[in-house]
Amino acid sequence: MYVIGIDFGSLSGRGVLADAATGREIASVSMDYPHAVLDRALPCGVPLPADWALQDPQDYLDVLFYILSTLAQAADPAQIVGIGLDCTSSTVLPVDAQGVPLCFDARFRRVPHAYMMMWKHHAAQGQARRMTELARRRGEPWLPLYGGLVNAEWFFPKLLQVLEEAPEVYGAMAHYAEAVDFLVWQLTGRQTRSAACLGYKAFYTGRFPDEAFFAGLNPAFARAPQEKAGGPVVALGSCAGRLTQAAAARCGLTPGIPVAAGNIDAHVCVPAAGIDGPGKLLAIIGTSTCHVVMGEALRPVPGMSGAVWDGVLPGYAGYEAGQSSVGDQFHWFERACAPECVAQEARARGLSVQALLTERAARLRPGQSGLLALDWWNGNRSVLADADLSGLLMGLTLRTTPEEIYRALLESTAYGARVILENYRAHGVPVDAFYASGGVALKNPLAMQIYADVLNLPVHVCETANGPALGSAIFASVAAGVHPTAAQAARAMGSGVARTYRPDGRAAAVYDRLYGEYVRLHDRFGRGGDETMKRLKAIALEA
Amino acid sequence: MYVIGIDFGSLSGRGVLADAATGREIASVSMDYPHAVLDRALPCGVPLPADWALQDPQDYLDVLFYILSTLAQAADPAQIVGIGLDCTSSTVLPVDAQGVPLCFDARFRRVPHAYMMMWKHHAAQGQARRMTELARRRGEPWLPLYGGLVNAEWFFPKLLQVLEEAPEVYGAMAHYAEAVDFLVWQLTGRQTRSAACLGYKAFYTGRFPDEAFFAGLNPAFARAPQEKAGGPVVALGSCAGRLTQAAAARCGLTPGIPVAAGNIDAHVCVPAAGIDGPGKLLAIIGTSTCHVVMGEALRPVPGMSGAVWDGVLPGYAGYEAGQSSVGDQFHWFERACAPECVAQEARARGLSVQALLTERAARLRPGQSGLLALDWWNGNRSVLADADLSGLLMGLTLRTTPEEIYRALLESTAYGARVILENYRAHGVPVDAFYASGGVALKNPLAMQIYADVLNLPVHVCETANGPALGSAIFASVAAGVHPTAAQAARAMGSGVARTYRPDGRAAAVYDRLYGEYVRLHDRFGRGGDETMKRLKAIALEA
Repeated sequence: MYVIGIDFGSLSGRGVLADAATGREIASVSMDYPHAVLDRALPCGVPLPADWALQDPQDYLDVLFYILSTLAQAADPAQIVGIGLDCTSSTVLPVDAQGVPLCFDARFRRVPHAYMMMWKHHAAQGQARRMTELARRRGEPWLPLYGGLVNAEWFFPKLLQVLEEAPEVYGAMAHYAEAVDFLVWQLTGRQTRSAACLGYKAFYTGRFPDEAFFAGLNPAFARAPQEKAGGPVVALGSCAGRLTQAAAARCGLTPGIPVAAGNIDAHVCVPAAGIDGPGKLLAIIGTSTCHVVMGEALRPVPGMSGAVWDGVLPGYAGYEAGQSSVGDQFHWFERACAPECVAQEARARGLSVQALLTERAARLRPGQSGLLALDWWNGNRSVLADADLSGLLMGLTLRTTPEEIYRALLESTAYGARVILENYRAHGVPVDAFYASGGVALKNPLAMQIYADVLNLPVHVCETANGPALGSAIFASVAAGVHPTAAQAARAMGSGVARTYRPDGRAAAVYDRLYGEYVRLHDRFGRGGDETMKRLKAIALEA
Repeated sequence: MYVIGIDFGSLSGRGVLADAATGREIASVSMDYPHAVLDRALPCGVPLPADWALQDPQDYLDVLFYILSTLAQAADPAQIVGIGLDCTSSTVLPVDAQGVPLCFDARFRRVPHAYMMMWKHHAAQGQARRMTELARRRGEPWLPLYGGLVNAEWFFPKLLQVLEEAPEVYGAMAHYAEAVDFLVWQLTGRQTRSAACLGYKAFYTGRFPDEAFFAGLNPAFARAPQEKAGGPVVALGSCAGRLTQAAAARCGLTPGIPVAAGNIDAHVCVPAAGIDGPGKLLAIIGTSTCHVVMGEALRPVPGMSGAVWDGVLPGYAGYEAGQSSVGDQFHWFERACAPECVAQEARARGLSVQALLTERAARLRPGQSGLLALDWWNGNRSVLADADLSGLLMGLTLRTTPEEIYRALLESTAYGARVILENYRAHGVPVDAFYASGGVALKNPLAMQIYADVLNLPVHVCETANGPALGSAIFASVAAGVHPTAAQAARAMGSGVARTYRPDGRAAAVYDRLYGEYVRLHDRFGRGGDETMKRLKAIALEA
């Protein structure tokens, strides 16, 4: 018996056909979204302001059915017993009562707000700020579960932006759908809401915030949850519906097979890594890092992105925290600061620039460069939740080399990860083990050794080339009844550890001292002792 | 009538033959020191430790006589009426009673301490530290005139290093000579001591410190000034002696013409720029910057490098302060951080990398990048006098470009210059006008506009391709009696202003705010509020 899991990323979708009992991968396929990201103009040429990031939902449908029909041919379709989907979130779009995207309607073809807003669409910053302020003023009980701050990427800031800037779109939509719910709907013919997305991105804690909160933002927004975010809530590990005749015919699968409740791309990596319960933190280290860990109880942890009961695996509190630039920061250095001689040597030796920098940086001893960085090139998500912070580099001399700076950037993200880990522990969420997946974890052994030394913990790197898709396949197998619980499915199907990096005692001792310096600077510039970064940003905005 | 001025720099000597009345340049010539800098090994192969920087005095003699004999052929030698020399300081060497360098003696050929120690020889750091501590403890009255700190580059730390590490060299030397005094001696046959070098580099304020101070450092050092630094002191603007028959014959000049008292290379730029009195600050902006200004009275100004009566022009207090890395820092960025695409575009357009970065940086508005740097890539000379400080860069984002960082580095050195200027003013040394010379001043118009905007003062850039040599020619003309005073000679012969950069009101207003941020960081990290930089350096040394 087989299951299909599909992961919808920022630029492409990737699906796997996996053995429903063991998780062994039978086939995999991926497809890029034909229009990629719309951040300068709509396909019809309508220009987009800064901070916008849209996508065309037709691309998602094309990818969904291409992957399903391709995988259906990789085995006897009668043996394929379930489907699971995950997606970036909150990637959201307005749809009509039948689940058709409003941007498919000729009336809205040229209206940006009718398109799918990607998670990284940042133009609802003003709405998010107002929500934070109002929630603080009202003492909203849900706010502490979201780290005390409303993120502009989330569901309601985007919906409020649509209401205030394009009321005709707001009025015309029957639902404001998470992309994963929209996709599940296409397969099942039934509108549902993923409990995970609601929990982490839409202030849903078994119920939405009071009407008075929404009314305080905008009188026309008072019943936004009921009017635009309603529908049956489907819990993780449950079945959201069954494959319709039409969808089954379109992709060559069996009608009526279960489609699992949709999930968030980062969270679905947890069972894919074989993690089945509390205390094991999984860091998905890519362009940014998402830190997910489960706990026995739901507690407010300051500076997290979210805490949701049943949010990662049923039966546990699922905690999420994040670092807003990790691989992005290394890539920035490669692009903006790697000198010509480094680029030339890399080319001559057939290495990437980062591989060469890594090779050279690996020869340095911890602390040797005298450099220290604050990893805030894209602000700080956890634990400070402050987008107005910026990167800092200290200890520069006339002898400072590119590989020293590069290593300082790697180290700074490890310090940032340790702040998050210690913050979990300090607030009653035990962390006993550190797992890592994602591009940086797989491709940069030096970075992982540094993480092990800085955290003074073994770092277990999981094989996750198709990690999220495998995670969705795991939930598909639970929805199909192959495994009784997601935890059991994770144990049976998860990929496990590919390599473990163990801390070196001497390096850990040096990093302990450097981490002390990092924390002092972190608190000084991040917790209000010194507002220089914000004043610099304010001056830059005026200029 | 003509005069010759020769400037001995770090890597070469440069001489000019100038009209003694007007300063008009008739001819110029330069020659590199054949052995350049000895910082890894002596010519005979004896290796040198880190921080050492020696030179071969034979190179200086070769350059001296090559330049004199070349310039003697550029005019009727009978019309050449004086010679003036300047040199880096303290560049010092042990000589015998006849003025022959000890390293010429076969016994000392393989002894590093017998060679010429360059100004930037930094291996006497331990001796300098002990001198600072002892002078503070004893409340030495001269210490405040040197900014409260003994610099390892100065005369006595180097001499003490020789005593303690090579007592046989110390015992054998008759004099420890400043390079410029050694060169004047070769021409006049008479041992003298330049009052300027003594004043700025050897704690000489009309007298040396007490014997008890020197004895407190090392009993064998008690009479170091009398035993190794004696000889007639010659004041700036006076005649140190007359050209000997032998020297005249060797270079084709007239025996008996006056040779002016030797001077320091930076200070001699002041009359060369046409500056004839107090209140006009000259910044010689090259790899590092030297800020020289005259005052009506001699006062201790904290954080200066030195204050000497008659030290720049007779009749005034001469003040010197410095920034330890300026052009060096821009060059570091070019070398370590300019990405390949910048290097390629520069090559394709026939520009230097810095010229291209300057062109791009000039399109940015003040404050726009959100970046702020502390210009301490080589520590801070003035006003903090702390070599253990390091560079800092703040405000980095994923959108930060190379030209933004480059501009932030330019700006940071302008803020550093403003700190020095305001420090002079705050301690009773008026500064009414800002003059600039040196490579950066001549080659980087963007930097000079930024200086004008940051200082909110016009910046007058002096034409100084042969500036120091012209300055020495000015003193030669005074020694020869062509002009009655150095101030009058400066007015008659100085090169004057080539270009003036005027502050832009809007830019100055933005820079005023950014300067406020700079000063806050400067004081926090530089004045003891935050010792992170020093702890990082300590960790690096241990690693």
